[in-house]
Amino acid sequence: MDNIKSRGYGVKNSVFTKLKPIDFERQAPGADEVLIDILYCGVCHSDLHQVNNDWDNTVYPCIPGHEIVGRVVSAGGSVTKFRAGDIVGVGCLIDSCGSCPSCSEGLEQYCEGPKGWTATYNGPIKPDGTNTFGGYSNNIVVKESFVLRIPDALDIRRAAPILCAGITTYSPLRHWKVGAGSKVAIVGLGGLGHMGVQLAKAMGADVTVVTTNKEKEGAAKALGATKILLSEDKDAMKASEAAFDFILITIPDPFDVNPYVSLLKRDGVIVTVGLLGPYKKPLVNMEVAMHRRSLSGSLIGGIAETQEVLDFCAEHNILPEVEIIPIQDINKAFKQMQEGEVRFRYVIDMQSLKEENE
Amino acid sequence: MDNIKSRGYGVKNSVFTKLKPIDFERQAPGADEVLIDILYCGVCHSDLHQVNNDWDNTVYPCIPGHEIVGRVVSAGGSVTKFRAGDIVGVGCLIDSCGSCPSCSEGLEQYCEGPKGWTATYNGPIKPDGTNTFGGYSNNIVVKESFVLRIPDALDIRRAAPILCAGITTYSPLRHWKVGAGSKVAIVGLGGLGHMGVQLAKAMGADVTVVTTNKEKEGAAKALGATKILLSEDKDAMKASEAAFDFILITIPDPFDVNPYVSLLKRDGVIVTVGLLGPYKKPLVNMEVAMHRRSLSGSLIGGIAETQEVLDFCAEHNILPEVEIIPIQDINKAFKQMQEGEVRFRYVIDMQSLKEENE
Repeated sequence: MDNIKSRGYGVKNSVFTKLKPIDFERQAPGADEVLIDILYCGVCHSDLHQVNNDWDNTVYPCIPGHEIVGRVVSAGGSVTKFRAGDIVGVGCLIDSCGSCPSCSEGLEQYCEGPKGWTATYNGPIKPDGTNTFGGYSNNIVVKESFVLRIPDALDIRRAAPILCAGITTYSPLRHWKVGAGSKVAIVGLGGLGHMGVQLAKAMGADVTVVTTNKEKEGAAKALGATKILLSEDKDAMKASEAAFDFILITIPDPFDVNPYVSLLKRDGVIVTVGLLGPYKKPLVNMEVAMHRRSLSGSLIGGIAETQEVLDFCAEHNILPEVEIIPIQDINKAFKQMQEGEVRFRYVIDMQSLKEENE
Repeated sequence: MDNIKSRGYGVKNSVFTKLKPIDFERQAPGADEVLIDILYCGVCHSDLHQVNNDWDNTVYPCIPGHEIVGRVVSAGGSVTKFRAGDIVGVGCLIDSCGSCPSCSEGLEQYCEGPKGWTATYNGPIKPDGTNTFGGYSNNIVVKESFVLRIPDALDIRRAAPILCAGITTYSPLRHWKVGAGSKVAIVGLGGLGHMGVQLAKAMGADVTVVTTNKEKEGAAKALGATKILLSEDKDAMKASEAAFDFILITIPDPFDVNPYVSLLKRDGVIVTVGLLGPYKKPLVNMEVAMHRRSLSGSLIGGIAETQEVLDFCAEHNILPEVEIIPIQDINKAFKQMQEGEVRFRYVIDMQSLKEENE
């Protein structure tokens, strides 16, 4: 079958200026793949990191987007789970080795195969030698085993951020067994944080939002937090020493983790999900060892767990708070996101791209 | 009852020069306390840190020593577990609040009481306002609930380091469930490391010693390690990526933890027990998050677990490798220890102090 003509917004080369329209082609779907018409795509902070090459691994051209909600246009001959017309989602990964211990346990995001997992964009390279291009585009072709069902109960205009911000916070909350009575702090109330608060609350935890911004108190409480803790208020931080079982840190830029370590109870765990580079300062082991605390990290989630968080959100009436934008506003959105002014996630209405295309 | 005349070796003031003889008094044992004639005392790397005020918390005069083996001289009226003549041990702590959640769980080393636990030396301050003085001395008075039984099967000349080096490595190995088939790395083969190797091996683990010193291979294998890994050999380190379930780091000075993070399997844990200050460099969360690894710390162990490791060593014929010295050689021993030239622990024969005393 002929390649499919696609159009997206991306960055053409390593000198980052702005995202611009890019015409490209996608391979026609194979027997186990579905072609998806993209309706909505969330704008994740990592899209910004990736186009800026902050992790030194960006292959250009780079077309971001890994919070994709769309409609199935056609399905390959061996596809059984989806058919044309289905509303589906695609998250951060679209392939993995399928046979390593992690893949066998449904933890494709920790794939130990020779190439690891394939990211939805900046894969960087698919087996056929081409890069992967994400959801800031009109369509995508994905293996059915990496496609998610979007439950009917979810508003499709708002569901997309569950596919990254949702699963990224849900997976560590589940893995470290947050539940009824857990004292949880969510540090940072952006795209990830605002999902973390809602999810932890729905799991039965008592949630505190730790932020630098006093003005977020109303939003934090509306999302389900009991209270906020201002991280720059030394007295308040001191008064919260050893107060939490679990702290999820969603700050996307380098920060000093030591003040948060002191907030953990004995055997408490910090999981940092926003930052992928180095922390700002060395960890002080005294504070870690004195209470047998742990500092961990977590990366998105596997396919089964991503379906689980979608279903959990549907069941608990949890939805991302979003601002819907046309794709032509993406560069402005990136700037706002960099300045921390999003409440709480931009979602691109891809109809805007199609109209531009016509 | 009158105070008891004691003599020890310590540092009189904050300008560290050398340890010298110090005459002091201990309170006579109360009803729940025992007076112990000290026979042997291990020399721990933290003794060096403490007299040097490396942790900014040393109260002078400072008489170190928390690996104490001795003989009960007399027991207070309510003491039931010990009587004159018993061979007993005293480790790193001699009191705690007794009622907080950690104490209730037998984790006195994580006491959450208002004053925390009382260290055997540099307590720093007992309820009566006096500092605590450790085992580099002829006698000590300790509450029976903080006194350990030394099993008959253990050579009393060599048992003392179990009370700190032993429990400090045993506790995290147990807490993180090292057992048959675990792939364990012990980083650093000094006082702590050489106990960690023997204990992990006896628990059924496959043990690798990570060291900078190729000449330690023979010793590592003699203690039960399968092999050594040279931390400065980049190719060997690369070949050991994601090879270990659990890594116990015993390096006492600031180091970069990042190269060790890469050695962990998914969900693997590093526990640093030697260092109490900051690491040398910031942790890179990419390597932590990509495999959901954890960086933790652990502090000695509780009283019940310290008894457990003494009994475990007796059962498995595990003993510290020691060099017995007279107390008059303590300053030379400190110098050797600082230069990393101990194999593997100095133990002071306290008879040398008594002869000096006469």
